[in-house]
Amino acid sequence: MLDLAIVGGGPAGLTAGLYATRGGLKNVVMFEIGMPGGQITQSSEIENYPGVSEVVSGMDLMQKWPEQCSRFGLKTEMDEVVAVTSNSDGTFRIKTTSNKEHDAISVIVCTGSVPKRGGFKGEDEFFGKGVSTCATCDGFFYKNKAVAAIGGGDAALEEALYLANICSKVYLIHRRDKFRASPETVERVKHNEKIELVLNVDVEEVCGDKSGVTGVKVKSRSDSSVRDISALGVFVFVGRNVKNDVLRSANGYICEVNDGGEVIVDLKMRTSKKGLFAAGDIRIDAPKQVVCAAGDGATAALSAIEYVDEFKALKK
Amino acid sequence: MLDLAIVGGGPAGLTAGLYATRGGLKNVVMFEIGMPGGQITQSSEIENYPGVSEVVSGMDLMQKWPEQCSRFGLKTEMDEVVAVTSNSDGTFRIKTTSNKEHDAISVIVCTGSVPKRGGFKGEDEFFGKGVSTCATCDGFFYKNKAVAAIGGGDAALEEALYLANICSKVYLIHRRDKFRASPETVERVKHNEKIELVLNVDVEEVCGDKSGVTGVKVKSRSDSSVRDISALGVFVFVGRNVKNDVLRSANGYICEVNDGGEVIVDLKMRTSKKGLFAAGDIRIDAPKQVVCAAGDGATAALSAIEYVDEFKALKK
Repeated sequence: MLDLAIVGGGPAGLTAGLYATRGGLKNVVMFEIGMPGGQITQSSEIENYPGVSEVVSGMDLMQKWPEQCSRFGLKTEMDEVVAVTSNSDGTFRIKTTSNKEHDAISVIVCTGSVPKRGGFKGEDEFFGKGVSTCATCDGFFYKNKAVAAIGGGDAALEEALYLANICSKVYLIHRRDKFRASPETVERVKHNEKIELVLNVDVEEVCGDKSGVTGVKVKSRSDSSVRDISALGVFVFVGRNVKNDVLRSANGYICEVNDGGEVIVDLKMRTSKKGLFAAGDIRIDAPKQVVCAAGDGATAALSAIEYVDEFKALKK
Repeated sequence: MLDLAIVGGGPAGLTAGLYATRGGLKNVVMFEIGMPGGQITQSSEIENYPGVSEVVSGMDLMQKWPEQCSRFGLKTEMDEVVAVTSNSDGTFRIKTTSNKEHDAISVIVCTGSVPKRGGFKGEDEFFGKGVSTCATCDGFFYKNKAVAAIGGGDAALEEALYLANICSKVYLIHRRDKFRASPETVERVKHNEKIELVLNVDVEEVCGDKSGVTGVKVKSRSDSSVRDISALGVFVFVGRNVKNDVLRSANGYICEVNDGGEVIVDLKMRTSKKGLFAAGDIRIDAPKQVVCAAGDGATAALSAIEYVDEFKALKK
């Protein structure tokens, strides 16, 4: 029986492992099939993790974490979790793709969420070289420059407004005439002087050269006219896959999630299911920043320590 | 008119400054009378800030933060805030000890909280050399060693339980016969094999030598007998001063606080007062860790950016 199973090995999972083992929990296993470090390892430039003042790649930022977070006894299983289910005695069962099963008194889920890609020509080629899915992370690199934001939902509009505070111009590109966002947000976008709406178009291509992105080619869905938009950054906000599959069974989710599939937590990272905690980008209201995910991981681990103590005391 | 006033310059305030300015807010001022870095700069050893894998002093940990967090335009006023009040137009007024007044659209309060000292002989002398006020921070340094925990409230008992997971023995020292903690917590403490209750005693002295703390001398309040307890760590949990004075006026607090004076926030670090955010140790359920405070600061800044945008749009 594990004291704690940590599902996912990004900043939240690693920090949870650090705090749980340093706090005295025994038998703590982090499940991560890939290299620990998470999505951020795909980023080319980070300058907003406090304490790391130089501009570093995500790979470099995370490089020291696995050793630091494992030195107090955290074990890592290079295996992918397929399901977290409840046992009748209040513990959890972790099933993995290699058909192993582990029981655990507590679980911290930190599998994250992944921005969807638009599927445009040039999008993958220039990802990290002008194409981004995170305004908070990368907007500043386009200070006083023109950028394009693609999408029509709340997230896209909010990110466009964020970019408008930094960039000289934001082309907001959307397939339809109308936005699927809250009316207040739509109004703010429409009245923002820096935002130009480019509506009812398909993105044909993200264009660029050796130096990175140079613009976006869009085609009108009404008259098929083509327009070349100059932009050094292209921000794609066409949705997000919350990686909550491990919490879902035939009967629904093991804990409460919102309409977007994000796990509902309180300030202690407790889900609606006792003994189950969530941390990082999988939870509601996640700012999707390394330092926030790490803070969540520490918080969830401290809650798990308390829960495991209580659980063991009750079973005595 | 400031876009944002940040009250306090610890990890939460600095990170809020970094995220707010990098996110495009203009006129952001952090008010901090002391050296930026916060309480943690008084700690001698830190090994649980993710990404900083060597054991460093708090001073060394925070050394790079002010420059990194200021490079996007954060200004610092070396002045102490005495009050944050509301103006009739929804903005805030910041008053300082040097009698200056600043108006701001939004405010992030991150003045922290400070553990109370017991006032025992030897306590100050050995602070950071065996005397600590944070089990999460320093418990691990006493792995498989005997420690003493002093106090009788919920925090003291929870910290004693945390220490019992790590240390070989925990002497829980309390002035009275009964604890002011929840009955469930008291039961867990009583049934924990590693915790020995030392009740109805006054702490006479924290003893030590050149290598640090060696024990605690306590005196019975019933028969005045003296006992020398061997312990390499002494954890003092006799309460906490939440530094919320700036939020208090003759009419009460400007936002909702709990019975302990901690500011009530949601996951976006919004208080009950629009435009006012709290981050770090001043808020409810704060884990009181650098990485958590920094995560809070980032979250609060992103919320403030959104709020300032909305506020300005409404005023147009």
